[in-house]
Amino acid sequence: MQLLPVMEGLHSAEAFNPAFLEAFFQRAREVENRPLEFSEALRGRIIATVFAEPSTRTRLSFESAAHRLGASVISVSDPSTTSGTKGETLADMAKVVGSYCDLLVLRHPNDGASRLASQYAGVPVVNGGDGRLGHPTQTLVDLYTLYRKWGEFEGRTVALMGDLRHGRTARSLAWGLAMLGARILLLPGKGLDWEASFERRILDKFDYRLRWGKHPLFAEWTGSTEARVLEPKGLVQKSLFREDPPEIDRLDAMYLTRMQAERGAEVGSGGYPGVTADHLKNPLMESCQLLHPLPRCEELPASVDHDPRALYFEQAAMGPVVRQVVFLAMLGEDKWPLPALAPLPAGSQEHDLGLCPNEGCITRSEGITAPWRVVGLARRTFLCSYCDSLLPVDYAGCRSTHRVHPAHSQAALRISPENLRPFLRRDEATAAGYTWGG
Amino acid sequence: MQLLPVMEGLHSAEAFNPAFLEAFFQRAREVENRPLEFSEALRGRIIATVFAEPSTRTRLSFESAAHRLGASVISVSDPSTTSGTKGETLADMAKVVGSYCDLLVLRHPNDGASRLASQYAGVPVVNGGDGRLGHPTQTLVDLYTLYRKWGEFEGRTVALMGDLRHGRTARSLAWGLAMLGARILLLPGKGLDWEASFERRILDKFDYRLRWGKHPLFAEWTGSTEARVLEPKGLVQKSLFREDPPEIDRLDAMYLTRMQAERGAEVGSGGYPGVTADHLKNPLMESCQLLHPLPRCEELPASVDHDPRALYFEQAAMGPVVRQVVFLAMLGEDKWPLPALAPLPAGSQEHDLGLCPNEGCITRSEGITAPWRVVGLARRTFLCSYCDSLLPVDYAGCRSTHRVHPAHSQAALRISPENLRPFLRRDEATAAGYTWGG
Amino acid sequence: MQLLPVMEGLHSAEAFNPAFLEAFFQRAREVENRPLEFSEALRGRIIATVFAEPSTRTRLSFESAAHRLGASVISVSDPSTTSGTKGETLADMAKVVGSYCDLLVLRHPNDGASRLASQYAGVPVVNGGDGRLGHPTQTLVDLYTLYRKWGEFEGRTVALMGDLRHGRTARSLAWGLAMLGARILLLPGKGLDWEASFERRILDKFDYRLRWGKHPLFAEWTGSTEARVLEPKGLVQKSLFREDPPEIDRLDAMYLTRMQAERGAEVGSGGYPGVTADHLKNPLMESCQLLHPLPRCEELPASVDHDPRALYFEQAAMGPVVRQVVFLAMLGEDKWPLPALAPLPAGSQEHDLGLCPNEGCITRSEGITAPWRVVGLARRTFLCSYCDSLLPVDYAGCRSTHRVHPAHSQAALRISPENLRPFLRRDEATAAGYTWGG
Repeated sequence: MQLLPVMEGLHSAEAFNPAFLEAFFQRAREVENRPLEFSEALRGRIIATVFAEPSTRTRLSFESAAHRLGASVISVSDPSTTSGTKGETLADMAKVVGSYCDLLVLRHPNDGASRLASQYAGVPVVNGGDGRLGHPTQTLVDLYTLYRKWGEFEGRTVALMGDLRHGRTARSLAWGLAMLGARILLLPGKGLDWEASFERRILDKFDYRLRWGKHPLFAEWTGSTEARVLEPKGLVQKSLFREDPPEIDRLDAMYLTRMQAERGAEVGSGGYPGVTADHLKNPLMESCQLLHPLPRCEELPASVDHDPRALYFEQAAMGPVVRQVVFLAMLGEDKWPLPALAPLPAGSQEHDLGLCPNEGCITRSEGITAPWRVVGLARRTFLCSYCDSLLPVDYAGCRSTHRVHPAHSQAALRISPENLRPFLRRDEATAAGYTWGG
Repeated sequence: MQLLPVMEGLHSAEAFNPAFLEAFFQRAREVENRPLEFSEALRGRIIATVFAEPSTRTRLSFESAAHRLGASVISVSDPSTTSGTKGETLADMAKVVGSYCDLLVLRHPNDGASRLASQYAGVPVVNGGDGRLGHPTQTLVDLYTLYRKWGEFEGRTVALMGDLRHGRTARSLAWGLAMLGARILLLPGKGLDWEASFERRILDKFDYRLRWGKHPLFAEWTGSTEARVLEPKGLVQKSLFREDPPEIDRLDAMYLTRMQAERGAEVGSGGYPGVTADHLKNPLMESCQLLHPLPRCEELPASVDHDPRALYFEQAAMGPVVRQVVFLAMLGEDKWPLPALAPLPAGSQEHDLGLCPNEGCITRSEGITAPWRVVGLARRTFLCSYCDSLLPVDYAGCRSTHRVHPAHSQAALRISPENLRPFLRRDEATAAGYTWGG
Repeated sequence: MQLLPVMEGLHSAEAFNPAFLEAFFQRAREVENRPLEFSEALRGRIIATVFAEPSTRTRLSFESAAHRLGASVISVSDPSTTSGTKGETLADMAKVVGSYCDLLVLRHPNDGASRLASQYAGVPVVNGGDGRLGHPTQTLVDLYTLYRKWGEFEGRTVALMGDLRHGRTARSLAWGLAMLGARILLLPGKGLDWEASFERRILDKFDYRLRWGKHPLFAEWTGSTEARVLEPKGLVQKSLFREDPPEIDRLDAMYLTRMQAERGAEVGSGGYPGVTADHLKNPLMESCQLLHPLPRCEELPASVDHDPRALYFEQAAMGPVVRQVVFLAMLGEDKWPLPALAPLPAGSQEHDLGLCPNEGCITRSEGITAPWRVVGLARRTFLCSYCDSLLPVDYAGCRSTHRVHPAHSQAALRISPENLRPFLRRDEATAAGYTWGG
């Protein structure tokens, strides 16, 4: 199986692991408490921020972090001045700009752009937000903000509210919360839920289960008193014995998101869910920290800014601190190693599976076919290696036996990844000389 | 009376005082003469330049100043990448960006933006030009340029020519000149005069008087041989005994401004006033220094660039020097304190006076009502605390006696500011339980 | 003859000379091999990058070079925020921004912009690409990339392919290659050849001759098996005895360029010439290094990126190195002098020759007439001093004899440049009191 080169850098919250996060939070505390110690740590290094989508906040946060470490910054902040206008591929841009700098921060409208860029840049690439998929440094900011408040995450219940379909920060955060053992409660706006396949990956990966919980206040946000809850299977569920679904009596944090109108989101007939000062009086919210990646719209009125539970400006202020740690971990001296990030399983392009079905995938704008990778223990799931979209693979062949099986069959599960050859349709398998193995 | 938080930073030339200016000029001379002494003064500090309006010159001037002091810069220069596109308020932007930097330089299209931002930023805010009201660092540049030439301002006559209605630099400069005792002669383009209320504030504040002066050349600029002159009441006016209005025989400086077409200015039928090489031959102009904030249009032809009275490029070169002093005063070590700026009287939002009548006021774009403040010794004048626009307050109530009076009455004057409650209409006072005091 | 001020900075590859280039390449090697030695060389200096045309790559390359030397950068990267929108001239912009920095890098859409800016800036100006004429630092990058591979240029054959009409990099490179004695083979796209007058200047200047060469592969690129070759007259031409035109048997390098659609280029009916993996198998290309200034379009498919002859990303990586040397030569301490650049012959504006016939000339956008200069030994050629366009001067007068002659006559050749007075038409000479000298 021909592998893609190892991907370096920070592309996805999916690459985190608990040891990495724990070490990261401790480093962040050091940087926050003793900023002057690090003010020359990256003197002479050049960090490039290439923002092919408008963003003031995130870019400035990265650049502030670079300057706090004594690094220099080169920057592209205007989408219309970037490669696109001259028809350049992201791969070329990454290769060229990578030769100008020591680290590349990329924001890009297409899913998986950061992973693709990292294959060409020759320097570490940090995902500053790509497509609707991931925004891992924002997740580190979000998690560190809660860590400063709580110290640990187990047993905490965090609600994700608003546009889960287009909002990359909520997705990334869900992954991080599951990794740390928190309970996740979902309050999507109407028509703004994420795909089932994304949620199933979380459940599978972290041995979580899905159940439902209820509270009258939920209806004000989603139209229904019931909400999906993702939680560790190990949690004792006393409540289940009392009623079904059980009442949720307490939220420890709520993560609000803005409707991503620029990504095509539309307000459903029920309006877009947000909090009000009244909601905060409900016992459910008594100790509920409010987080928001900002900028905000109506979902979070300024009238609650002075509430002690309003944590979002503190959260914003953690942006440069967290990004300092990211830069230090990637460019700093030996004393700053963090536990390794899990490299994403690289994909294969040997067997052409055609175009990625996700029109926003970076492979589509780069004009290449999607390399696939396979995940899952209990069943084989084929994903685009860049954007993690589910590929419609229904048949799995074995290159050793030259037999082909339904992708979800036990027989398919027994094929080792090295021997696996996916087919979209059965006749393709036949044409390739595979016989039906049932 | 609920006060707004104290406003920090540099928002308006109105906050200057003569002691501040004198000390400032001396500092500027030191920085100009011994630049290397300051090249590391702000090492490790981060200065953010947020320009929500296009401006090459001013932004680069601030950034050059920052670098000359060893500071780092994070910058937003493209209006379309700023908060607006995602619907963010200036308050939120200031709060977030303020947590990324040590000082925020703001240019903004709305009047009073800098004052509003300073309430949220948590770091000093320097007004890099907001709305049509103020541009205080440009005023410091203009004044310092003249100071280098003259040493003192008393007895000097400075003409302000062109677009006084939309040009914020001329307004700010007028305030500074009056503070230093210079005579101000007004040569506005047709339909481009400033509001009477602005002029009245200068006259009141500095004990100036308005008179008229004449010269044939004025007609070439404004269509009339007569021009308004603002001057200290104390000046001996021999000329008054000779003729009325007296002939102006000498201008010491002329401050030209560009027509602010992008702010809605239009050339009147008489054309826009400017100088020519011919004008410079007139005895009136013999020792008249020419200043212009640049960029220029036809009002200042390149053909006069080599005239020794053409001071405008020298003026431009003073930009970074002056801004270095501003940064040093705000972020430098103890040896750089300047005499305190007068804090602007904070306003009250306790009594809702509705929307500010100025459509360009930052309160309008932020969607808040205008906090008011009261100025004036001889009569009560109510101003928007952000944009200084006159509020149409006709009635003044006393919270102690619960009586209401005409705002300009002697009775109103006797109400202490703490007890003052303004009303736009008499029936509002009645509804609030106030009785008519006449 | 009234001379324009001496032009400082780096404006055109035409100013190079072999001694300069040789020294430059050696400096570049030092900087490339021992980068840390130079990391503080320009600490405290401010470099301004003003890009009045979109360009990510070139701007970042310059800025990376500045930071690698410890310099600070102030930057304008958005064309719409530059002077144009407020109607400012380039001269004013250069004068003002020049007072904010120690060196100005300018990219501009108009031919000759860099030369004009250098007359006003007061600091060295480096041409970062102006109009369709020159891009001298790119030429240094291109030449240095080949120098690293070859060590010397004599006897090498370099093909220039694609849009020679609008592509400034190919023009600049041709000049540099001729200076170093290489053979230049021209493979322009249909309708995308450069002007004869440009080529004639190269032939005249370097004592080159034009001949033709052929190869079947040429037809795939230009539709003809024959191609123009510029080569030193001294080269022994054995091949000429064998056939006419002789077969070209080897290309040492090919310089591909993108079609400059944004400058008005259109694909001719034959398509735009580019290379394919198949072409690279042809013996003609066996040791042909591929260069491209990037960004690329279809003319250079990604499928050849892994070929060892693909030098274009290495070329891109040399960008900052080369620009470091440029900055060091202009701002560094004494140990970094390079042999002097030939100052361009300054022009005269004494005799008004009207508007420059090149509509893209900076004189047209600045609203001034074109200063002329005269070049050529064997015949007088009058060029615009800014954009090098041929001026239609048909008559040459002598200010000493007051006689006028045809511009190309022997009599005209004998007039010393100091006495030369050009006329566009004969009746202008008569009106000025000149008599016909035949």
